[in-house]
Amino acid sequence: MLVLTKGENEMNKTVNIKNGVNVDQLVGTIEAIKGDPDVAKFQFRAETKWVNGGHCRTEFRNFYGAKAEDTSRIRSLVIEADEPSVLLGEDHGANAVEAVLHALASCLCGGFVYNASAQGISIESLDFSLEGNLDLHAFLGLSETMRPGYENIKVKCRVKADAPKEKLAELCAYVQKTSPVLDILRNPVSVTVEME
Amino acid sequence: MLVLTKGENEMNKTVNIKNGVNVDQLVGTIEAIKGDPDVAKFQFRAETKWVNGGHCRTEFRNFYGAKAEDTSRIRSLVIEADEPSVLLGEDHGANAVEAVLHALASCLCGGFVYNASAQGISIESLDFSLEGNLDLHAFLGLSETMRPGYENIKVKCRVKADAPKEKLAELCAYVQKTSPVLDILRNPVSVTVEME
Repeated sequence: MLVLTKGENEMNKTVNIKNGVNVDQLVGTIEAIKGDPDVAKFQFRAETKWVNGGHCRTEFRNFYGAKAEDTSRIRSLVIEADEPSVLLGEDHGANAVEAVLHALASCLCGGFVYNASAQGISIESLDFSLEGNLDLHAFLGLSETMRPGYENIKVKCRVKADAPKEKLAELCAYVQKTSPVLDILRNPVSVTVEME
Repeated sequence: MLVLTKGENEMNKTVNIKNGVNVDQLVGTIEAIKGDPDVAKFQFRAETKWVNGGHCRTEFRNFYGAKAEDTSRIRSLVIEADEPSVLLGEDHGANAVEAVLHALASCLCGGFVYNASAQGISIESLDFSLEGNLDLHAFLGLSETMRPGYENIKVKCRVKADAPKEKLAELCAYVQKTSPVLDILRNPVSVTVEME
């Protein structure tokens, strides 16, 4: 979709917006990174405070990216976590392993939309259903052999868009190959935890 | 802390609440799992819908656990995701890789509080600062060799509690060993993605 907007000095220019994504900015970002690889380096941050019981709150604001400290957010973004009653909480938020499912789905969703937009595909609807299977033995110190985390995660994706099914399947495969969170889940990440 | 509450038939009984955690229920859960390993099997679920551009919304409600479908949540819990403006979004929520940091911190936080409570340690404050470093080359299709996800994640943990430093360091090590999300990040998880 081509949208006509006013330029800064009263000249008209066309901005290519597709599925809510500014494709010109996307192409510009890719070109900027080709010109200077350091533009691609990002550092994301989070501050999490315990509230009570299983309830805690994470705030996000500044981050580093595109060779600068990014302070553009006008307020902190917040995610709350808690447990359901069977796991001794009060449902002030989804729990930590549910948040993993959200991280995965939102990453696949964004990847799908950005890549579809770059390819000129209009998306009508896109949604994901996720299931993760987990056994509490290791978390509760009752097993040395079982893993504490998800044994497996299943994602189902439904999309309606103006492209043939094969094209969408190809896109889905590409999104999986390039998804940051899918990579984080499928492959080991180095994590250091330090007490101050 | 021992709190005196009214029993069902007007008898007084003591309920052991520590740091907001019902330690009796925690011990009861552990005993139930020792008696029947299937009590430990959980399946968590999420439904994610694209909204516009980089914005999507995840809802959580029912799950399976303790040998039953759990429908105790009286409403869906919601997490929104979006991107900051430099990544073509409008900040309707933290982005997918920021949500990973939240998942990790909330898991470590919960693990710390539950285990401290079981050990009779009172926590005054507990917070976490996280940093994750990521390079956009792979996400944007500009590298076949770099990974799309975090190269590394650094967690700093600060705790004030009525226990000696060595005891808290021991607890921190135990929490890392048994944390579901830390396991998910440090070790590969099988993830299947299917288009319907």
